[in-house]
Amino acid sequence: MNTSPVPVAPSAGPLRPLGIDAVTIDGGFWADRQRLNAEAIIPHALKWETRVGWIPNFGYALDGTIAEHRHGREFSDSDVYKLIEAMSWEAGRTGDPGLEAEIERLGAMVEAVQREDGYVSTKFDNPGQDTRYSDFEWGHELYCFGHLIQAAVARIRTGHPDSAIVRVGLRAADHVLREFGDGAREAVCGHPEIEVALAELSRATGDARYVEQARLFVDRRGHGLLPDIEWGRSYYQDDEPYRSSTVLRGHAVRALYLTAAAVDIAVEQGDAELLDVARRQYDAALARRTYLTGGMGSHHQDEAFGEDFELPPDRSYCETCAGVGSIMVAWRLLLATGDLSYGDVIERTLYNIVAASPAEDGQAFFYANLLHRRTPAAAAPADEQVPRANSSLRAPWFEVSCCPTNVSRTLASLGGYLAAGTDDGVALVLYAPATLTVGDVRLRVETGYPYDGEVKVHVEQAPAPFALDLRIPAWAEGAAVDGSAASPGAFRVEGVAEGDVVVVNLPVGPRITRPDARIDAVRGTVAVERGPLVLCVESVDLPEGMSVNDLEVYPERGVAADGRGAVIQGRRLDRGDSGWAYGSPHEAPRGDLAIPLVPYHSWGNRGPVTMRVWLPVAD
Amino acid sequence: MNTSPVPVAPSAGPLRPLGIDAVTIDGGFWADRQRLNAEAIIPHALKWETRVGWIPNFGYALDGTIAEHRHGREFSDSDVYKLIEAMSWEAGRTGDPGLEAEIERLGAMVEAVQREDGYVSTKFDNPGQDTRYSDFEWGHELYCFGHLIQAAVARIRTGHPDSAIVRVGLRAADHVLREFGDGAREAVCGHPEIEVALAELSRATGDARYVEQARLFVDRRGHGLLPDIEWGRSYYQDDEPYRSSTVLRGHAVRALYLTAAAVDIAVEQGDAELLDVARRQYDAALARRTYLTGGMGSHHQDEAFGEDFELPPDRSYCETCAGVGSIMVAWRLLLATGDLSYGDVIERTLYNIVAASPAEDGQAFFYANLLHRRTPAAAAPADEQVPRANSSLRAPWFEVSCCPTNVSRTLASLGGYLAAGTDDGVALVLYAPATLTVGDVRLRVETGYPYDGEVKVHVEQAPAPFALDLRIPAWAEGAAVDGSAASPGAFRVEGVAEGDVVVVNLPVGPRITRPDARIDAVRGTVAVERGPLVLCVESVDLPEGMSVNDLEVYPERGVAADGRGAVIQGRRLDRGDSGWAYGSPHEAPRGDLAIPLVPYHSWGNRGPVTMRVWLPVAD
Repeated sequence: MNTSPVPVAPSAGPLRPLGIDAVTIDGGFWADRQRLNAEAIIPHALKWETRVGWIPNFGYALDGTIAEHRHGREFSDSDVYKLIEAMSWEAGRTGDPGLEAEIERLGAMVEAVQREDGYVSTKFDNPGQDTRYSDFEWGHELYCFGHLIQAAVARIRTGHPDSAIVRVGLRAADHVLREFGDGAREAVCGHPEIEVALAELSRATGDARYVEQARLFVDRRGHGLLPDIEWGRSYYQDDEPYRSSTVLRGHAVRALYLTAAAVDIAVEQGDAELLDVARRQYDAALARRTYLTGGMGSHHQDEAFGEDFELPPDRSYCETCAGVGSIMVAWRLLLATGDLSYGDVIERTLYNIVAASPAEDGQAFFYANLLHRRTPAAAAPADEQVPRANSSLRAPWFEVSCCPTNVSRTLASLGGYLAAGTDDGVALVLYAPATLTVGDVRLRVETGYPYDGEVKVHVEQAPAPFALDLRIPAWAEGAAVDGSAASPGAFRVEGVAEGDVVVVNLPVGPRITRPDARIDAVRGTVAVERGPLVLCVESVDLPEGMSVNDLEVYPERGVAADGRGAVIQGRRLDRGDSGWAYGSPHEAPRGDLAIPLVPYHSWGNRGPVTMRVWLPVAD
Repeated sequence: MNTSPVPVAPSAGPLRPLGIDAVTIDGGFWADRQRLNAEAIIPHALKWETRVGWIPNFGYALDGTIAEHRHGREFSDSDVYKLIEAMSWEAGRTGDPGLEAEIERLGAMVEAVQREDGYVSTKFDNPGQDTRYSDFEWGHELYCFGHLIQAAVARIRTGHPDSAIVRVGLRAADHVLREFGDGAREAVCGHPEIEVALAELSRATGDARYVEQARLFVDRRGHGLLPDIEWGRSYYQDDEPYRSSTVLRGHAVRALYLTAAAVDIAVEQGDAELLDVARRQYDAALARRTYLTGGMGSHHQDEAFGEDFELPPDRSYCETCAGVGSIMVAWRLLLATGDLSYGDVIERTLYNIVAASPAEDGQAFFYANLLHRRTPAAAAPADEQVPRANSSLRAPWFEVSCCPTNVSRTLASLGGYLAAGTDDGVALVLYAPATLTVGDVRLRVETGYPYDGEVKVHVEQAPAPFALDLRIPAWAEGAAVDGSAASPGAFRVEGVAEGDVVVVNLPVGPRITRPDARIDAVRGTVAVERGPLVLCVESVDLPEGMSVNDLEVYPERGVAADGRGAVIQGRRLDRGDSGWAYGSPHEAPRGDLAIPLVPYHSWGNRGPVTMRVWLPVAD
């Protein structure tokens, strides 16, 4: 039982996570975003959840007028809970008393609505509403409980086991055990989430019944408990039993939350088979169903994974929440297997999905993360809630607004992902300016990463020599540690002592990346990356009137660093209509051109543009 | 006023269409499909529309229990009307007395339900149902009236102006004039169709009020009469006024039906501006938003056109009905402008969309027409209605089943598209074995087209010499007429006399087609075509266990004819997962291979397969 403020708390495994109290990000890329989260994103989410009625719903549930007054989709309660979770991590990080009061105010509000038996919802079971558990496929009741319980776990771990939301969460969890336990109601929720929450609640409370309930839920899937729907049962991973599945499929966020739960259950119950299954599915998705940015999900319609190598950049969905879900899985697998290379996808997804979602001012978000924007989006609405389908522009709020609070809870707890304890020392997973305390060891990391590839690890305190494991990213060919070549994977420095400075050098200059030949949608193109950053071209950097659809590049002429981006040589095309787009000759290209690239995460902050990551190669 | 059995009857224009009584298709590709339509498709549609309740709905509307018993979507009435239209053309073609009786039975059934004021619906306005015209965006009432009126027009033109469905259609049309005329209710239907139907009814009755009402409806669009929706007002072409639009956009079938109406209105009212607008929009869509097959629509979610050059083959929607709509527009533009090259897209769409939709046995249909099937579809349900979203496999019936009856009415009236009368002779548009009567001239066309490129036009009767215009398709480089080179476009033979045989030779051998470099989704690929036929690879023709996703081709080695298809040289790829699909080396290809191609329209008739039209070129 681990009650330190860790995002995830496995009770076994080769790596031991650090609490957010053990890590301070001191500056740079992620400190900027933690500050943005505290100062802009959390207040913004609180304002919007009030404005669109999701928080006020609880008041109406209390006064009995909810049927008449309710706003928001079935699952809007979950976003209130996710906001409480984000605020809990943030309060745990900074101790902000204003946040503390707000968390308790919201918790008391939820508690007032909770039934004696632990059930709580603003959508069902109140006067004039449908009865509870009348719609497992779309009702999202257990999904909401999952986020409620995650908020409770965050409060327990950050030192507030007496918080109102903890009482509510525990009552809800016990209600779930009674209602859905072995021999009771044989059902699962259309949207996985309760499973990972219950597993974590076991860890936070030491009560193994919760994780066993999570296991029951996982093993119930794939037996047709949910109805067939337009997109098939694969949409909610009810098409085949979890343990016989080989790859992530269907709705990406659902698949990832379920897999995070499977890893947790496997670890807590010592179920090696389940761990293998979860790892196999995730690894297969990484190899064949993941975008360069780490984004997952190729279909807008059902927010789902595509088939193998179906990765269209212009129709990429890459939901921000799927990025968060992927980080949840990868971090759990890293802790469970000790394989630091899972840090590669965590880093990639953090820099190119999580950091891409919020606008520079933290007041608007991408829900989907396209790799190619063919036409400029209409100017983002400054003050308007939009449907998720408009998710290819940053918007202040969505009718389904899971993404802003998912970004927020990830940023608030980000310190917990930088490193882990090993049996004989420390493993550094993410590079950022930070101070880390691992048992008796205190490290200070000094770096300008990701723009500068030098990382200095100052050993400020170490009663005895220890081993330092360093993640060397797969892209970092030519990396060195203390002047010695370090191959991608993990590099171990033995006998590190107090006063030492271990210097890691990662090649973060721009590089050209080619896609697997099986990805039809980007055949004949290249991308440019710098360290963990995917770069892109934005039309605002091209000559007046030129779209990103009108360019081709010469990768054989190389690529040069330019500020935080790069420049590649290419040409502008100018081809009119020939009446029929097949078998017709093209007009001559207009002329050569230097094409600037900027970090993908920063795109869309300079007004409506066209944008693309994959650049067509000139013949 | 033209009451001959022509599919479309403009009262002006350089070309005059022929009635289906003037053209007999004597054999070959299209005669086979007309027979399939008569013997299989029409009986199949009648059986299914009865089975799923769409025909029985009218009985329940009559006995007052419809609210309790109704089956089908809002617009299911329209499919009953479209079936009546198809049967009307078929009865006009063959005089089948069984069909005649069925048409009258169905017409009487609808007539019994019609209100005194002309309104008729099984979805609205009956006891227990929503009131009429309470939902213009999704209610489809005027859309249904449009198909009702088209059925009436077909009956008038095929010699049955006293038919029950004609009385119903005229009453409905007059109701529409009263209800939606200038100064009355200012509304438009979310789904265009009433416009083209009213224009045609003017032609069939000589009453100009109908086409004026159609013009009103067209000009009312783009002024926000319909609400904004998730996909924007462009979904139903209400985002900007028709006359200022420059390209087809939004839901493809809606855009095409509306444009067909615009051409009809322009011709009937002598509105040159409107004709230009319609032509410009359609030409732009042809040049930048059309698949190689002639298919239109790149988005599954909203069945919509994509942006320019957004043409993903694996997510192509290419709804069968959009193919029918495109033929409607192209044929109207051909008649209105005299430009025979619109016959190219008609021919391409007929061979690769309309002919592709029905299975060989006429008992199952494609709703969408993918150009790349990545995984084998589950075996088609033999006896089950499926959602349209499952449209990437042929199915016997869909919850939205517009496509089978659209195919049926097109096949039944196909004779009318083969040729047209000119001021001084005849223009041949489509090549098929046929007998054609144009005024005093009788022609017999003898050909094995599209498999054989020789077309012999026997002049069996011609009181005086006349001019014969022959369409030379754009792909037909090297074509000849009577031994003289004939460039793509129209080729005119003057002074053709009785007893002459004009011989057209079209190069129908296999050819390699490259896409415009701006189509991102098929960069680095080629397709193979033969005459008007697009070819494709089906995995059933590849070595055991090989998917179409595992091949690359060598187009520089040419392509050879093989039966009705072709063979291209290529290689099989065998690449395992490298863990990450970007920047990793590929394994060596396994070896060279001859890859057979078959006509696209025939695919999916040999069990579940993978399939692709665009073939990756080996480096």
